[in-house]
Amino acid sequence: MPNTSERGNLMPDSPIRKLVPLADKAKEMGRKVFHLNIGQPDLPTPQNAIDAIRNIDRKILEYSPSEGIKSFREKLAAYYHTFNIDVTAEDIIITSGGSEAVTFAFLACLDPGDEIIVPEPAYANYTAFAILAGAVIKSIPSKIDEGFALPPVSEFEKLITPRTKGILICNPNNPTGYLYNRSEMSQIRDLIKKYDLYLFSDEVYREFCYTGAPYISAFHLEGIEQNVVLIDSVSKRYSECGLRIGALITKNKALKKNVMKFCQARLSPPLIGQIAAEASLENNKEYMHDIYDEYVERRKFLIDGLNRINGVYSPIPMGAFYTVARIPVDDADTFCAWLLSDFEYENQTIFMAPASGFYTTPGYGKDEVRIAYVLKKEDLATSLKILEEALKVYPGSKVRQMAAIAEE
Amino acid sequence: MPNTSERGNLMPDSPIRKLVPLADKAKEMGRKVFHLNIGQPDLPTPQNAIDAIRNIDRKILEYSPSEGIKSFREKLAAYYHTFNIDVTAEDIIITSGGSEAVTFAFLACLDPGDEIIVPEPAYANYTAFAILAGAVIKSIPSKIDEGFALPPVSEFEKLITPRTKGILICNPNNPTGYLYNRSEMSQIRDLIKKYDLYLFSDEVYREFCYTGAPYISAFHLEGIEQNVVLIDSVSKRYSECGLRIGALITKNKALKKNVMKFCQARLSPPLIGQIAAEASLENNKEYMHDIYDEYVERRKFLIDGLNRINGVYSPIPMGAFYTVARIPVDDADTFCAWLLSDFEYENQTIFMAPASGFYTTPGYGKDEVRIAYVLKKEDLATSLKILEEALKVYPGSKVRQMAAIAEE
Repeated sequence: MPNTSERGNLMPDSPIRKLVPLADKAKEMGRKVFHLNIGQPDLPTPQNAIDAIRNIDRKILEYSPSEGIKSFREKLAAYYHTFNIDVTAEDIIITSGGSEAVTFAFLACLDPGDEIIVPEPAYANYTAFAILAGAVIKSIPSKIDEGFALPPVSEFEKLITPRTKGILICNPNNPTGYLYNRSEMSQIRDLIKKYDLYLFSDEVYREFCYTGAPYISAFHLEGIEQNVVLIDSVSKRYSECGLRIGALITKNKALKKNVMKFCQARLSPPLIGQIAAEASLENNKEYMHDIYDEYVERRKFLIDGLNRINGVYSPIPMGAFYTVARIPVDDADTFCAWLLSDFEYENQTIFMAPASGFYTTPGYGKDEVRIAYVLKKEDLATSLKILEEALKVYPGSKVRQMAAIAEE
Repeated sequence: MPNTSERGNLMPDSPIRKLVPLADKAKEMGRKVFHLNIGQPDLPTPQNAIDAIRNIDRKILEYSPSEGIKSFREKLAAYYHTFNIDVTAEDIIITSGGSEAVTFAFLACLDPGDEIIVPEPAYANYTAFAILAGAVIKSIPSKIDEGFALPPVSEFEKLITPRTKGILICNPNNPTGYLYNRSEMSQIRDLIKKYDLYLFSDEVYREFCYTGAPYISAFHLEGIEQNVVLIDSVSKRYSECGLRIGALITKNKALKKNVMKFCQARLSPPLIGQIAAEASLENNKEYMHDIYDEYVERRKFLIDGLNRINGVYSPIPMGAFYTVARIPVDDADTFCAWLLSDFEYENQTIFMAPASGFYTTPGYGKDEVRIAYVLKKEDLATSLKILEEALKVYPGSKVRQMAAIAEE
């Protein structure tokens, strides 16, 4: 039997999906599992999108252009203009989800051994895509006690080597919910300019900024227009995760040419997904208005609830729909697995993503979890109750240990 | 401006799609362009599939499992059983088109510098995916005058080095239409077994075998079940290129685990595409029956027509829906571009794929083109006429040169 690739062996298991088999088993046992692990909103997809699919009037479901359907790209450009992002349809390449956009960005910008600097905790799959491309992620830890603010630029600069090709940010941030402020974005800009790096900016959560602070796109930063690679996706903002429609946006013609080779090799992005995503843009404002209010409420409800549980701490996320919370356990990986395999509260349990998978620095995130507030408040309430009860009985729970000591 | 990746720079332009801008210009000038360049059938997608899409009854278009929807995988397994391919739903991983299946197969099996042996001419994007994975393709030319039969196994063996990890075949073959016979497949099997290699077998055209000779799947070969990586796609057999649904099939658990890491990183294959592809399987036999007869007729019509044109030669393809034809020109790349940019016959022209892009050996395929017979006979007739007329006036045409000499 021939060996599998070392590259594949090195790929981390997804912290979001690796416990799925345990969740499946729990469900087979008849338990209800609340999915706080994955950014799969329970909110409805826009009716426009569903209607566009139901009204498909084609005899042949044929390839679309490798760069995506033109009318869709034109409407996307108009959508970005509403955020003062000055791009044209020509700058936009449609991809199979934001995942493919990140993958192609790495493949087209980075060679094996090239380095990118990423503040952590970070979306776990960046690491996977970097390994896929043979690139190296250099992490700068941000800290829960500082609300996951951007580490000082001096920390970034220390990591720069002749192999450094870029900086990657996710803003608003998955998993922390942090929103970079103007001063932080300016500092990133200066660094990008000084060292002539790529700025990979994942902005799929731009619609979800809750504090009144402005969303600053990488394309708002002056003088680095050729360096910015913007990553986008319709998955989260329209509850369209299944469509697999994202975008890679660059004003850099040489880079676009390079990316297009990867696009042509895989022929085209999904046709039906593009049709549905294009339709979603038509009532973007009205739809987002309702969705937004819902997330504001869920955020408050979840964070308040978490901070009321003995030993649990969550900063208040400024954007996106996740939080990284500290929980009083020996090992969050073990705890999250235990919740699925050994625990039930009224025949229910919760599925959280251990935060260790969002860090590359060993040992970090050991007592942290990522929680997505993509479920309705009632489900969040039950989930909070389950977490509270679990911490009372989990063998590695510090709350339980403290209680035991108090009883002695 | 930072450099683009050397890997991307090395990626070849798609021979199938690189002339698209010229075709677009011809269309802008009001010319009709017959697309013989791309395997995009003009035959209708199964009504079952269209109906499944039009009847979508979901509020949320959510992620599907990373390995694909279970009921779809189960039905696919049953479909393979009708070809005596003994696989289970567990062995099947759904991908975003056959393209992603090849990509993940390479990424999970090959490390940078690893080599695979591929008979050429070969589907051009294999080279692109190999470069993506840092792998090296070693080509063995097959020859038009031998009907593109498999080169002797001794030729394969000569290329084997300690870095050789696999052999890739496409059967029935794109671009040549060749169908490997039992003796050839046995020889491949022996080589795979002897050197413990992977056998990547792209069998997306299995439904299109025209000569009565049996289709021999890689999974029919005894003793190498753990070595086979089967690539499939619904694009061609159901005229569903736009859905982006393919499959990677392996009975090798270690390899499956490795592939699944790449699958989890990109979260899931397209949801709507899976629903439509699953519906397509329901009336597979009836649908394929009609389609098959149509291709048989088109094949005869095209090949007869080609061989009647002065100086043109095409072997008779045994399967798939392509042929590689020799045409009497100085350079097929220049000719194909010229057809789009400088030629029209009654305001129409043809788009063919220059065959040079299907070879990696320099100089090969210089007077060959790949033609897809995916258009109706009437369009093929017009296309043949256009080719004939073009060869009379193209500056680098040998027919024209001969005629000029005869006149002198």
